[in-house]
This record gives sequence, C-alpha cells and structure tokens, in this order.
Amino acid sequence: MTPHSELDRLRVVLVSPRNPLNIGAAARAMSNFGFLHLRVVNPYELAFREARSAVGAAPLLARAEEFKTLAEAVTDCTLVVGTSAVGLRQLQHPVRRLERAAPLIRKRLAASPVALLFGSEKRGLSNEDLSHCDWLLRIPTREEHRSMNLGQAVAVCLYELARAPQAASKPEKHIPAAAADLERLTALLVDALRSSGYLKSSPSGSQKRRSAAPTEEKIRRLVRRLHLSATDAELTLGILRQILWNPRQDKKLSQ
Amino acid sequence: MTPHSELDRLRVVLVSPRNPLNIGAAARAMSNFGFLHLRVVNPYELAFREARSAVGAAPLLARAEEFKTLAEAVTDCTLVVGTSAVGLRQLQHPVRRLERAAPLIRKRLAASPVALLFGSEKRGLSNEDLSHCDWLLRIPTREEHRSMNLGQAVAVCLYELARAPQAASKPEKHIPAAAADLERLTALLVDALRSSGYLKSSPSGSQKRRSAAPTEEKIRRLVRRLHLSATDAELTLGILRQILWNPRQDKKLSQ
Repeated sequence: MTPHSELDRLRVVLVSPRNPLNIGAAARAMSNFGFLHLRVVNPYELAFREARSAVGAAPLLARAEEFKTLAEAVTDCTLVVGTSAVGLRQLQHPVRRLERAAPLIRKRLAASPVALLFGSEKRGLSNEDLSHCDWLLRIPTREEHRSMNLGQAVAVCLYELARAPQAASKPEKHIPAAAADLERLTALLVDALRSSGYLKSSPSGSQKRRSAAPTEEKIRRLVRRLHLSATDAELTLGILRQILWNPRQDKKLSQ
Repeated sequence: MTPHSELDRLRVVLVSPRNPLNIGAAARAMSNFGFLHLRVVNPYELAFREARSAVGAAPLLARAEEFKTLAEAVTDCTLVVGTSAVGLRQLQHPVRRLERAAPLIRKRLAASPVALLFGSEKRGLSNEDLSHCDWLLRIPTREEHRSMNLGQAVAVCLYELARAPQAASKPEKHIPAAAADLERLTALLVDALRSSGYLKSSPSGSQKRRSAAPTEEKIRRLVRRLHLSATDAELTLGILRQILWNPRQDKKLSQ
C-alpha cells in the first residue's frame, strides 16, 4: 500500500451530491482505502453527516469540509482531476483511463495536494465544474452501460490509487501552482478583458457575471493548460496586476 | 477490456444477502463492467428483483438465478473463489490479494466457468460456505477498517477483473473438474466413512447429517485441495463407487 502521507494528500471532492447515502458510502470506501479528506460542495441535503451508509467511517464524515463553491474546495490543490462517464457531451479535456491516470495522480500526491472530483448523481460535473479541472479520468465501464453509482465509482477509483505499492514515486522537480493561484489569475484576466472592452460590462453585477460566464470558463481552461509552476504563476499575477493598475484601468474601475 | 466471452464465464454469487439495495448495486456494477451472470443463494428478502439500485441493470437482475444451496449455485464452476475481509477468524485457505488473484481467475475464465462468492453483509461467508471454495481473495483495505459495503466490494473486484486487457490469457492445458463432480466425490467419501464406522450413523437422517457436518466440510476442503482434473475426478468417483458397492457396504447400507 502507498505510504500514508501520500494518500493523506488526496482530497475527494463531491460536487452537488444529492443522496446522503452516497456521501456515506463514499466516506466508507475512503476509510477502507486510507483516504481521509472528504470535501463536499453545495450538497442537496444538508443532513448528510448522519448517513447510515458510512459504516465505520462516521469520524471521517464528521470531519468532512463543506464549501459553497468548487473553486474554494480545490484552493490548495496543484492538480484537479474530474471523473466522467464521458457520454455524448463533447469534452475539451484530455481523458485518461483510470489505470493510466492513477500513476500520474500518485506522482503529484508525493509532493502536493490533489483533488479528485465526482459530480452529482444526476448530471455529473457541469461545464463550469470541468473548467476547474486539469484533466479527466474515466473508469473503463462498458459502452452500453457507462454510468456508475457514485459510491461504487469512488470505491473503484480509490482502490486503483491504493493498489500498486511499487508505483509510489518521487515528487516532481517542477513545483506546480495551486488552484488558488490559478483562480486569482483567471479572475484577473477576466477583469482585464472586461476593462479592455473585450467583455461587455453592465451596471448590474449579477447580469455582468452571467454574460461573462462562458468566457470565464474558457479563460480558466486556458490558465490550467499552461501548467504554470508556482513561481511562474506568481510572476504572471504580478504582471497582470501591473496591467490592471495602469491609469486607464483605474479610470474604468472607478466608473 | 477482456474479451466478452471470458467475462461471460464468471458467475457472481451472492450468498444469503440481506439488503435488496446491495443486490441491485451489485447488478449495476456487473452490468458496468460486462459480467452478466448473477446468482443469488438463499436471499433474506425475496423481492430483490425490484431493487431500485440496479440502475440500468434491471434485465440482468431479472435474469438472476436463485438457489437454495451454495453447492447448487456453483455446480458448473471449475474454480470457486470466496471473498473475505480476513478478520480475526482463522482461515484454512490460501488468501490472495485481489490484484494477484485476478490473473488466476482470468486464466481459468479463458476455458471454463468460475464462481466469485460474496457473503452476507452481516457475517460474510460461513465456514460451510468456505468449504466450497478453492481459495480466498481479499481486497487490500486498511487493517483499521477492513469491511467494505457489499455493492462496493463487488464493483472493485469486477473492475480489477476487467482492468488489464493485456492479461487476457490462454486456457490451461489441464481441464479441471467442475464443482458438481467434486461435490459428488465429497458425498461419496462421507458415505464411505459412515459405512466404514468412522462416522457414527444414527437412525434419524437429520441427526446423522448434523453430527457429520464438520467432517463433511473437512472432506470437501480436502477434495478441493487435490486440484483434480475432470478425468481424475471421474476416475476417483468410479473407484469410490466400487468401494461402496462391495458386499460389506451393501450389508451396512441395507441395515
């Protein structure tokens, strides 16, 4: 089994899960395989912590962290991997089979936190959710019946991650940027685009956000594709702040 | 993915399952990974075929075969593998980790049917159940939290069996005996021991059975450890029948 310190760096993130029994089942599988950090984003039923299905994993479920947004839930992670049944939807991400994905995840876990995302039982991960992902993982189910139960999908992924003891690996030399930095970068770029007139800004905050949403997702995907190191993310943030603070931007921002 | 003909030879056998939702979840995982033959021994709730949890696997669940005894459920299988959390109980079988067990199971599946047994949620497989097994398989869960949910355990085992396409293998040259032959052999040996006076026979059939039960399990384990080929099982059955039909046995049997 992979050393505990490595498993300890995985964050299992359930995004908008509907059924508390599935959350409990996920917690049980996590405890079975030694992954102890559960994060829940915007759960449908708030009383999930009492789920009977978390047999033997009540403490893990009690310690689960709750978040309003996915961005907040992956803030400390340098790699964000989404799970997908890869159905009809056109995907803009590289998709790796679980057995090929696991060594990459373990490699990253040797040095820094990784988030593994599971979408809601009904719809999986949304496009907005996917824009936070570096790449996707799929469990090799049959073409004819792809969609797995959430608790079973979590169990299978964690089994594969804990499976091969020999694959525990050295950390990478490149120190990757954490999601929080990438998110700041995304936000700054969106602001810059808006100030430059590329994106229309409207007087109402909420309307502005809606019209900017698809562009924001595009930018977020772009930023992730850059595979920035922590240092380069910092540098880029600095450059962007310079751009935003020039006199022309100040004028725009003060409107 | 392993060719379909091979997967088609696996029989997933749930022994005395209690919760229909777990049976449905097992069916769903089977359908996800392309294993279509479910057998249920002595289920606690008979209405399991309506289990809501069998999302997308209703036809598979409808076709599930029901048996009163485990012996009947594994009759056509040349390899019977039990799953176990391997707790405190002293085990008399070889126990293999799932990732080491899977290639052996696939090898046998290339030529003949294999049964993979899962015990009840509460107690797992009984000693009597285990006496039908050639060996045991365990999912490498943490020492501190071994016991998995039934549906999740089925999913993990089937994922591992369907996982490695390159491992699909040639059938063995040795044609192994089916469980039905081994069971006949066990029964004949028990009869022979009873006739020889090693086992006490009592006038009441039911009492006799009870006193003979532990010995019967021992004999069954012994017979499985012989790894008889189909031909040798036939031969041994012939020899035993000869022994049982000699004049002394006839006298005993007619008492």
